[in-house]
Amino acid sequence: MTGPTHEDYGRLIVQGADRPGIVATVSGVLTDEGANIVSLDQSTSDPSGGRFFQRTVFHLAELPSRLAGLNATLETRLGEQLGLEFRLVEARRRKRAAIMVSKADHCLLDLLWRQRRGEVHMAVPMVVSNHPDLGDDVRGFDIPFFHVPVGKGDKAAAEKEQLNLLKGNVDVVVLARYMQILSAGFLAEVGVPVINIHHSFLPAFVGAGPYQRAKERGVKLVGATAHYVTEDLDEGPIIEQDVIRVSHRDPVPELQRKGADVERLVLSRAVAWHCDDRVVRDGSTTVVF
Amino acid sequence: MTGPTHEDYGRLIVQGADRPGIVATVSGVLTDEGANIVSLDQSTSDPSGGRFFQRTVFHLAELPSRLAGLNATLETRLGEQLGLEFRLVEARRRKRAAIMVSKADHCLLDLLWRQRRGEVHMAVPMVVSNHPDLGDDVRGFDIPFFHVPVGKGDKAAAEKEQLNLLKGNVDVVVLARYMQILSAGFLAEVGVPVINIHHSFLPAFVGAGPYQRAKERGVKLVGATAHYVTEDLDEGPIIEQDVIRVSHRDPVPELQRKGADVERLVLSRAVAWHCDDRVVRDGSTTVVF
Amino acid sequence: MTGPTHEDYGRLIVQGADRPGIVATVSGVLTDEGANIVSLDQSTSDPSGGRFFQRTVFHLAELPSRLAGLNATLETRLGEQLGLEFRLVEARRRKRAAIMVSKADHCLLDLLWRQRRGEVHMAVPMVVSNHPDLGDDVRGFDIPFFHVPVGKGDKAAAEKEQLNLLKGNVDVVVLARYMQILSAGFLAEVGVPVINIHHSFLPAFVGAGPYQRAKERGVKLVGATAHYVTEDLDEGPIIEQDVIRVSHRDPVPELQRKGADVERLVLSRAVAWHCDDRVVRDGSTTVVF
Amino acid sequence: MTGPTHEDYGRLIVQGADRPGIVATVSGVLTDEGANIVSLDQSTSDPSGGRFFQRTVFHLAELPSRLAGLNATLETRLGEQLGLEFRLVEARRRKRAAIMVSKADHCLLDLLWRQRRGEVHMAVPMVVSNHPDLGDDVRGFDIPFFHVPVGKGDKAAAEKEQLNLLKGNVDVVVLARYMQILSAGFLAEVGVPVINIHHSFLPAFVGAGPYQRAKERGVKLVGATAHYVTEDLDEGPIIEQDVIRVSHRDPVPELQRKGADVERLVLSRAVAWHCDDRVVRDGSTTVVF
Repeated sequence: MTGPTHEDYGRLIVQGADRPGIVATVSGVLTDEGANIVSLDQSTSDPSGGRFFQRTVFHLAELPSRLAGLNATLETRLGEQLGLEFRLVEARRRKRAAIMVSKADHCLLDLLWRQRRGEVHMAVPMVVSNHPDLGDDVRGFDIPFFHVPVGKGDKAAAEKEQLNLLKGNVDVVVLARYMQILSAGFLAEVGVPVINIHHSFLPAFVGAGPYQRAKERGVKLVGATAHYVTEDLDEGPIIEQDVIRVSHRDPVPELQRKGADVERLVLSRAVAWHCDDRVVRDGSTTVVF
Repeated sequence: MTGPTHEDYGRLIVQGADRPGIVATVSGVLTDEGANIVSLDQSTSDPSGGRFFQRTVFHLAELPSRLAGLNATLETRLGEQLGLEFRLVEARRRKRAAIMVSKADHCLLDLLWRQRRGEVHMAVPMVVSNHPDLGDDVRGFDIPFFHVPVGKGDKAAAEKEQLNLLKGNVDVVVLARYMQILSAGFLAEVGVPVINIHHSFLPAFVGAGPYQRAKERGVKLVGATAHYVTEDLDEGPIIEQDVIRVSHRDPVPELQRKGADVERLVLSRAVAWHCDDRVVRDGSTTVVF
Repeated sequence: MTGPTHEDYGRLIVQGADRPGIVATVSGVLTDEGANIVSLDQSTSDPSGGRFFQRTVFHLAELPSRLAGLNATLETRLGEQLGLEFRLVEARRRKRAAIMVSKADHCLLDLLWRQRRGEVHMAVPMVVSNHPDLGDDVRGFDIPFFHVPVGKGDKAAAEKEQLNLLKGNVDVVVLARYMQILSAGFLAEVGVPVINIHHSFLPAFVGAGPYQRAKERGVKLVGATAHYVTEDLDEGPIIEQDVIRVSHRDPVPELQRKGADVERLVLSRAVAWHCDDRVVRDGSTTVVF
Repeated sequence: MTGPTHEDYGRLIVQGADRPGIVATVSGVLTDEGANIVSLDQSTSDPSGGRFFQRTVFHLAELPSRLAGLNATLETRLGEQLGLEFRLVEARRRKRAAIMVSKADHCLLDLLWRQRRGEVHMAVPMVVSNHPDLGDDVRGFDIPFFHVPVGKGDKAAAEKEQLNLLKGNVDVVVLARYMQILSAGFLAEVGVPVINIHHSFLPAFVGAGPYQRAKERGVKLVGATAHYVTEDLDEGPIIEQDVIRVSHRDPVPELQRKGADVERLVLSRAVAWHCDDRVVRDGSTTVVF
């Protein structure tokens, strides 16, 4: 799934109102510029009058020096003439991801380890936690760990400190089982996408204690959901979900252990796809190429 | 999973408050009577002070003639002395299942195919529908089809007619995408378990239109849930659930098609397990051996 | 996954040696002709010097009357100028599929039922069997059933009779648990793709008796494989596979029952995808869009 | 799935030729001694004349001081009178597992994380590797790391050194992607079970390079198999298997990445089950309770 990351590779994400000829126009612009299309995925929410989405990976010799020119051409041909939004990304630029975490280590370690082995194309300039417990683990990966306690009634101060750390330094924030709710003000201020892992198959078991409630309800599968964070708790656009089979023999701690395996896989996939520009937000949902 | 069905095979289902020695007592009673235990499954909801469940399949020569005696012994040893509930079942007696259906044929046909092939150990004395559409399909299996229309404001009369057909003739009612809500009075009157298939992964998307809502919410899996019907709609004890992966490319009709494959598998499994006495109700949940 | 089937919809399948500009050329030709691209999938076996595959669904007003002209244009622009192979298909033309079967009914019934409800876009002009057992079931769907016994030492005569029935009348042959091996001569003569369902996760358990051997080997999953039939038994290009979990508790007949559920799903998916021109053969493998 | 580990909990594993009354005898012995059965699983390879397997978890006050007496009673009642083999295990005693590894870290780290988190009930007295690369990672967990190079033509000397490290110090050896074949002599000498993870769904792709061959064969799922090591390479009794879906779009390195996620899950499950005495060998297969 991961594309090439050499400096001559680029990604073009296009979205907007569907109309005839978009694919041909995008392909034509790239070909006219001398680019070679490596892969192309497109999707339409509805064949008549829906929204259009396209992700194209291309190779263009000396892309870094030609980026500005290509951007200007696309602004004219796609933006002005077709009314489309687009994003042009150099594949070599890894997204800078801050990870926020509390005490559970399974999602954090999975992300750091995949980053180290090159499976997730991100840089991790910092891990921020409201508890000191995971500091040694994080620093073992040569990554700075910042402990920002969140006292009762003092969340505003903590969020201010978090924003000081994050702003300008990161392209995405990943909540890897961070057990504090972020305020609407924080989300507005931070200015980058925030990805969360929820420990249930949303919209089932919205809110706290999903494994306990899954046990009481007798469900036969438990799951996890990675989603972009919005002001509406547990309602943000879903990026990825998965489940694992459980039975009446599993007490709640065993549901948590099995669920943790799903959580780390689902979050790692979601972050990897986000970092490869495979996820396009579409209102309350997503398109995942 | 299915046990032997020769007339010398029996099943003993035991449940009640857990206490030391239940397994030994049940095994001892059966062995004393000359029975050979073929398989034994037991489970406890909580090792200290929980509820106990056991399903034992045994072989006892000339079981039919010895059933009454064994029942009396169990009544004394398990019922009176240990305060346990039990059910003694001859494996050769297939449960009589009425299937209720509306217009969708996928769950109905899957059940009838499996019954004919010997995969689900049930007899189907009748299919009851509020629409005439599936009559030919059903009668092709040499099974009586009864059309009981449910007019607006006239559900009480329809339910009375349904009860006349069902009462005394069936051991279980299976709602194979029957699109009418059964009244509390019907459930009380019919006197046998009622199994329903709900077209979502409960408790997500309780109520109507789950596939439409799944699309709007952008979930990445759609599912189905088989459960016993109680007065609380979509809240009955869950017997089985499963899911299938979907994506942004699937319009609602495709979600319905993929979901239909899950629905028929989940319902068929649930009915097969019920007919083999593998499902024990435990308050709002189930134990599935 | 299934595209529109109105008479103005077409599908264009392109394959050949990869080179820069193919996507733009194909898109350009279609747009120049006035077609609107509804969906486009492309893939390359290797970004440098690999094979290229593309499936495009498009809408073109009055397609039937313009088919010949479009074909000629594509022959020039794709065939002569770029050395690519292509197939232009009207979406409204359902493929004619003969189903060959022996005694097991699960794959056959699943295909006929999905065809009837519109899930698989094919016509079924005939079912051919070496046993008479399933005749009533087939004719219940208003489909001709031809019984061609295959006596010992008399396969050549039987294949000749089968070819008389099939040749010119069908676009694809589906072996829905047909338990005779077709000769190389038959495959050469019949002139259309032949799809088979093998009851194991190939290449595990090539040959006969896979469930018995899976039991002896103690595997924890059993599977099924749908593939195009070639002269090399069980070695043809794989279209689809899936598995289901089993355990030491499942005797061989239970493996067969669980496996049968996978077989019918896998075969139905493979046939549906083939009929929608989603499967492109690539030597010993396939590209499945 | 994991049972209690307090010092009063024990596990009794029984196996042998099936005959009437075994369950009752085992339950009776335990109850007579004052033990309370917490859970009981049993299985028979064949209801008539097969092999019998039972795993019982029980609570017995002051088990450590009563172990010898219970062992003697079981020797009489199960061993001498019924000809059964049995193993009596204190739940509090964690198995000592040596992990052998080469350069790939995914299986190793997953095991160490789970051990630290309390998910796998084992002690890890040492990690042994034929390469020095993973030393820092291992020692970060406060676990000794021993580098035993395996030179060409010098395997005998290396195995002798490995045996010196292992013998008497461990209860099980886990090959977490250890890329050397262990000799029959080593297996005989080491005297404890050896668990291996094979990077394919055995028996498909026995031998080296399974992902490359999976790509060439165009399979739609890749898998992993954890098994006990025997003299017959890749033929030992299977403990656990799982698979993940892949497509024509995944090049070999992506198959390896997806496969690695399955490998570490499958190996971790197998080791956890082995350490909880849930796996009983049955000739070329296993019973997994």
